[in-house]
Amino acid sequence: MNRIELIELIGRKKSFLCVGLDSDITKLPECVKSCEDPVFEFNKRIIDATLPYTVAYKPNLAFYESYGISGLVSLKKTMDYLHTKEKECFVIADAKRGDIGNTSKQYAKAFFTREGDFDFDALTIAPYMGEDSVKPFLEYEGKWVILLALTSNKGSDDFQMFENKEGMKLYERVLRKAQDWGSEENLMFVCGATKAEKFTDIRKIVPNHFLLVPGVGAQGGSLKEVCKYGLTKDCGLLVNSSRGIIFADSTEAFDKVAGEKAEQMQREMALYL
Amino acid sequence: MNRIELIELIGRKKSFLCVGLDSDITKLPECVKSCEDPVFEFNKRIIDATLPYTVAYKPNLAFYESYGISGLVSLKKTMDYLHTKEKECFVIADAKRGDIGNTSKQYAKAFFTREGDFDFDALTIAPYMGEDSVKPFLEYEGKWVILLALTSNKGSDDFQMFENKEGMKLYERVLRKAQDWGSEENLMFVCGATKAEKFTDIRKIVPNHFLLVPGVGAQGGSLKEVCKYGLTKDCGLLVNSSRGIIFADSTEAFDKVAGEKAEQMQREMALYL
Repeated sequence: MNRIELIELIGRKKSFLCVGLDSDITKLPECVKSCEDPVFEFNKRIIDATLPYTVAYKPNLAFYESYGISGLVSLKKTMDYLHTKEKECFVIADAKRGDIGNTSKQYAKAFFTREGDFDFDALTIAPYMGEDSVKPFLEYEGKWVILLALTSNKGSDDFQMFENKEGMKLYERVLRKAQDWGSEENLMFVCGATKAEKFTDIRKIVPNHFLLVPGVGAQGGSLKEVCKYGLTKDCGLLVNSSRGIIFADSTEAFDKVAGEKAEQMQREMALYL
Repeated sequence: MNRIELIELIGRKKSFLCVGLDSDITKLPECVKSCEDPVFEFNKRIIDATLPYTVAYKPNLAFYESYGISGLVSLKKTMDYLHTKEKECFVIADAKRGDIGNTSKQYAKAFFTREGDFDFDALTIAPYMGEDSVKPFLEYEGKWVILLALTSNKGSDDFQMFENKEGMKLYERVLRKAQDWGSEENLMFVCGATKAEKFTDIRKIVPNHFLLVPGVGAQGGSLKEVCKYGLTKDCGLLVNSSRGIIFADSTEAFDKVAGEKAEQMQREMALYL
């Protein structure tokens, strides 16, 4: 999905909500546990309930890889289902990959092609290894790199705030440097909602790039604050919620409640757009 | 495998060679291509031929993920085969993972347990997200984090050499900071052979930690230089070679030639030990 299509989708749904499919088997409602593939059944019902209010889904690879090959089979079924909704959502692999050039080329194939089984629209990438670790992902038409800049977790201070003698922090260096590699058409950045006060500085460096914003909800970030400092004329935000939507309820009605939570967020988003 | 066992293994084989199983399907010899599972057949024959000279194997996840679930089935078979050689080798997942705490916990399960299908001894981790992205991996007895510090690729200069006002570089900050999280018993660092001249500085910060050293061979690093500046009284090095061994020959005799290449490196290593 390219930038124009994404902006059109956001306008149509009046939403920039991304639902994180962190589908931890141990947290699934009892009612799906007897299904042949509980994770897929759970994801399918969450997707059906939230799709009217959601522009993006973000499966977190760790929650599938932790059950080995059977976990990845559940992910493949989920992706096959999402591909039937192709024009209705943008799908992000939250996988934090990145390696030397010839290896990143293989990861790009893994995530961006049918040969790799999944064919996502976008992939999160860790920037530590620099240019040749990122560029191979930018060669796929209509696919996106979402580069970690300022993350929402406690450990983000350890290295991302490391500062050079001109007072530039590492995450600012990442934002600046990456613009030599990709454009607003194929590059987004992860900027955590728990650091909303930094969005003013971030927007000075990347005024138009889309930002993927985790950390609203369970991690404590505020949607209002994020929008105040992060919204652009084209929206420019994808705000993720995972646990706050998918595990809002653990009864038979889990999907209905997830849909209601997504609708609540969509309504708030519509006000800010 | 714990540190004492690893040092004992190195002493017994007079080798600190790690063979990288970057088993790119497009580069496999013709003679294995008609097998039911060419990648597994190739890996098995490479392992059989190189095991006497090798203390570690390092499958690079990208080369398996790029063929989707079938690629991971080949990896699982390879791991099942390696588990039959348990005391004979240390097995590293080269996967460059790392995410917020609750996600890293899932990745640890994916790589360090049978539930995740693979049960590796060690995993490469990207440090960008800091403490809570690394610590969950350190809670597994006998398992290792191998944290990226100074990598062997061209892009490593982009961020790893970013320097604060005291002249400390980011990779040095990573080496220092990570010592608050793990010890010589469960933490190694990736330091590329193409930067051998930096090993003196690195050893000042981490005098006893094991270093995983990629970049000898195809990437241009010198084993002699690495040993000159990097060896410790306990060896303290695992030097990786991938393409230079596994793809040294593309005939029926590919495994025999790989064994000879591994033996050549082992003999040179025995001199330095």
